[in-house]
Amino acid sequence: MPPEEFRRLAHQAADWMADFLANVGRHPVLPRVEPGATQAALPAQAPEQGEEMDDVLADFERLIVPSLTHWNHPGFLAYFATSASGPGILGEMLAATVNPNGMLWRTSPASTELEQVVLHWLWQLLGLPDQCFGVIHDTASTATFHAVAAARETLDLPVRTRGLSGAPTLVLYTSEQAHNSVEKAAMSLGVGLENVRKIEVDAEYRMKPEALDAAITADLLGGRRPFCVVATVGTTAATAIDPVPKIADICRRRRLWLHVDAAYGGSAAVVPEMSHVLAGCDRADSLVVNPHKWLFTPLDLSALYCRRPEILRRAFSLVPDFLTTPEDAQVVNLMDYGIPLGRRFRALKLWFVLRYFGREGIIANIREHLRLARSVAACLAEHEDFELLAPLTFSTVCFRFHPTGVSETQLERLNRRLLEAVNASGRFFLSHAVLRGRFTLRLAVGNIRTTQEHIDQAWELIRFKAREMTL
Amino acid sequence: MPPEEFRRLAHQAADWMADFLANVGRHPVLPRVEPGATQAALPAQAPEQGEEMDDVLADFERLIVPSLTHWNHPGFLAYFATSASGPGILGEMLAATVNPNGMLWRTSPASTELEQVVLHWLWQLLGLPDQCFGVIHDTASTATFHAVAAARETLDLPVRTRGLSGAPTLVLYTSEQAHNSVEKAAMSLGVGLENVRKIEVDAEYRMKPEALDAAITADLLGGRRPFCVVATVGTTAATAIDPVPKIADICRRRRLWLHVDAAYGGSAAVVPEMSHVLAGCDRADSLVVNPHKWLFTPLDLSALYCRRPEILRRAFSLVPDFLTTPEDAQVVNLMDYGIPLGRRFRALKLWFVLRYFGREGIIANIREHLRLARSVAACLAEHEDFELLAPLTFSTVCFRFHPTGVSETQLERLNRRLLEAVNASGRFFLSHAVLRGRFTLRLAVGNIRTTQEHIDQAWELIRFKAREMTL
Repeated sequence: MPPEEFRRLAHQAADWMADFLANVGRHPVLPRVEPGATQAALPAQAPEQGEEMDDVLADFERLIVPSLTHWNHPGFLAYFATSASGPGILGEMLAATVNPNGMLWRTSPASTELEQVVLHWLWQLLGLPDQCFGVIHDTASTATFHAVAAARETLDLPVRTRGLSGAPTLVLYTSEQAHNSVEKAAMSLGVGLENVRKIEVDAEYRMKPEALDAAITADLLGGRRPFCVVATVGTTAATAIDPVPKIADICRRRRLWLHVDAAYGGSAAVVPEMSHVLAGCDRADSLVVNPHKWLFTPLDLSALYCRRPEILRRAFSLVPDFLTTPEDAQVVNLMDYGIPLGRRFRALKLWFVLRYFGREGIIANIREHLRLARSVAACLAEHEDFELLAPLTFSTVCFRFHPTGVSETQLERLNRRLLEAVNASGRFFLSHAVLRGRFTLRLAVGNIRTTQEHIDQAWELIRFKAREMTL
Repeated sequence: MPPEEFRRLAHQAADWMADFLANVGRHPVLPRVEPGATQAALPAQAPEQGEEMDDVLADFERLIVPSLTHWNHPGFLAYFATSASGPGILGEMLAATVNPNGMLWRTSPASTELEQVVLHWLWQLLGLPDQCFGVIHDTASTATFHAVAAARETLDLPVRTRGLSGAPTLVLYTSEQAHNSVEKAAMSLGVGLENVRKIEVDAEYRMKPEALDAAITADLLGGRRPFCVVATVGTTAATAIDPVPKIADICRRRRLWLHVDAAYGGSAAVVPEMSHVLAGCDRADSLVVNPHKWLFTPLDLSALYCRRPEILRRAFSLVPDFLTTPEDAQVVNLMDYGIPLGRRFRALKLWFVLRYFGREGIIANIREHLRLARSVAACLAEHEDFELLAPLTFSTVCFRFHPTGVSETQLERLNRRLLEAVNASGRFFLSHAVLRGRFTLRLAVGNIRTTQEHIDQAWELIRFKAREMTL
């Protein structure tokens, strides 16, 4: 593309982007689109001749944007937020333009070193002590996979060379509220789903340390090999915080690898009054936190920290001739720490975000989200027809509509209908979970564009739709 | 960031991007920077207060850009090219702005469906028949990992539930010239490096099918369980093409999963006179090709195709309550096909690239790269002090400086020095490999900005530095 054509189109895109972000709340947050509609609107094959880029951009606006779910919409209150702040987007524009591949230090010195620098900045912001090696992954699921692989590598078994055939049965521990990425890691690493012990939780959905300890004892007596515990700071459904200090004690005593999934909850620790959420995590062997969740960084950026990077390297490094460089002995080559060889320049957007907001700006934003969640939780708790289904630990409110005299079975149907009614409005998007068998609505604050006004409107819409339902 | 501030900065970035791309050849392709220099130039912690974005952008220009390796530089002839075309960059700008997370159809219908559409377009462009399920991964290493996991899942073993403890020894076959990602997959999946058979290659670095067959027989007689063969179309060092049709015959007869790594070579099949390179690949169970290599798409975009997507799903799908949606039965939810849950909108940039260039534009660009490689290979072959070390199959030339009367040991030293001298110029970046023990220089054409003029200059510089070395 000739430079001046690119310049014209990039300016055109810049205006579109600024307009989009200023008005994202005017789009339906959930699109009104049938499965297959986008596919049907597109040709069955690539064009023979090149097309005008203006036509392509027009099609993007006409065919794609209306059929996207708008994660940047201030009414996006489902799952956990992933919102793209201005500085994060600028970082992505520039990263795509310089487009280095940071597989080796030599193939991109500045991105390799910036990754170490920004991950160290983040580590300090989280209030964690000393230094800790960090590496960026796409998602927390991938980060957890690598952490569990490192745990497996610490065993005195020749897994790297001989594989797991002939090895004892390895056992991994996590809570019954843990994210499914833990089980995915066990499946793919050859541990097997049956060897994931989903430890019972207490009334507040936190792993019971005594149950963990008992399960480990039972496995040892059964001749199996415990090797890893995954604790969670901010579980997906109820955002519970496992008692990491006690779990860390058990791991130390039992010599097990402790991985902490703080993908969502970790970011809150930047706020001084929330620093307790990472208590004990300084003793974890590895920890994952997702700036693309609650740190206003566009997808994808998940930070995996590992106390003993040499173990990750032992689990994943393999250096063929063609990837050796003269400076190998002096530098970090990030390809050595995981599966992917190529590496996009994701550190740039996080650098932009951390500098643009500063520690104070991050605290102000997260603190406001915590306040917004408390405000709506208070409304729900006070209303006679609603109930909270989990303690509010972060910014995610778990609740249900519960008018008097309605049976449990009816409650599920009622709340499913309420969820669909709210989501069909196009103004807000909530998601759900199941807690102790009860169908639960989740309202998760974390989008950088969500304000008190949106939360008030969401609460009003929820009440309105609930009332409609019972008329 | 206020919308009007974002607009101003996005326009500023757009101009910077256009200028950068117009003048990328003026930067040194390999930066002159010492290990640790970037890190030392940056503060040890994040700022307390937010900073002006103008200052951050100025630091990007001052501290980061000069210390990057410039993959978009027309003199980048190392490894395999990853160059970002204008339409690809525009796609990334817009993807970061709309920022959907395509984990479920519901969480991003248009990106989920566009991914299916563009991967089908690409499949057709490659000249492959029928339909084939495709899914985007970050890199070919990750794609191959998922393919080998699918292969493992086809065994009549309870790997998903019970893991590999107690399973027979599984054996994976690939050539001794295969990419290290195959061994990485075996390591992490619990197969073990010792159970990867690196089959001997012929004089042109292609896997010997009879050696493959003999190895399988030997393993069966030894009570081991062969399960997967990975063939390569365009090996990393010599860009050899394994005899896929014969390998496919063996896999069919032996009932083994055939995965084809066409990460680099696959794109060439868009060119009609090169369509033979994917011969037999219609019979592969899975295939990976990287648009971020030779299809002008910025990092990262690797396309994994799989004939039996239900096997990938069996290997990786786990759907907790909170990820169920009303339309699950009618749609593809891309989270079901791999480790990562979150999913960036990578299909957009490939859609932009395929539409902007069209089939004809892609053919013209790749054909020109093939021609450029032939032209420099011809010069090397004719020159008495140089020799080619592998047949030219695609656009990567393997050669060495070989003045008469120099011993093998001296040749290695000489060529290492030549490589460093060329790379120190800042004008060109070549890489190396070792072929049959011989230190080999690799000149890989594939960057969209590389022209005949650059190739002529590279050849002149190589001769000049070689002559200097022998004076």
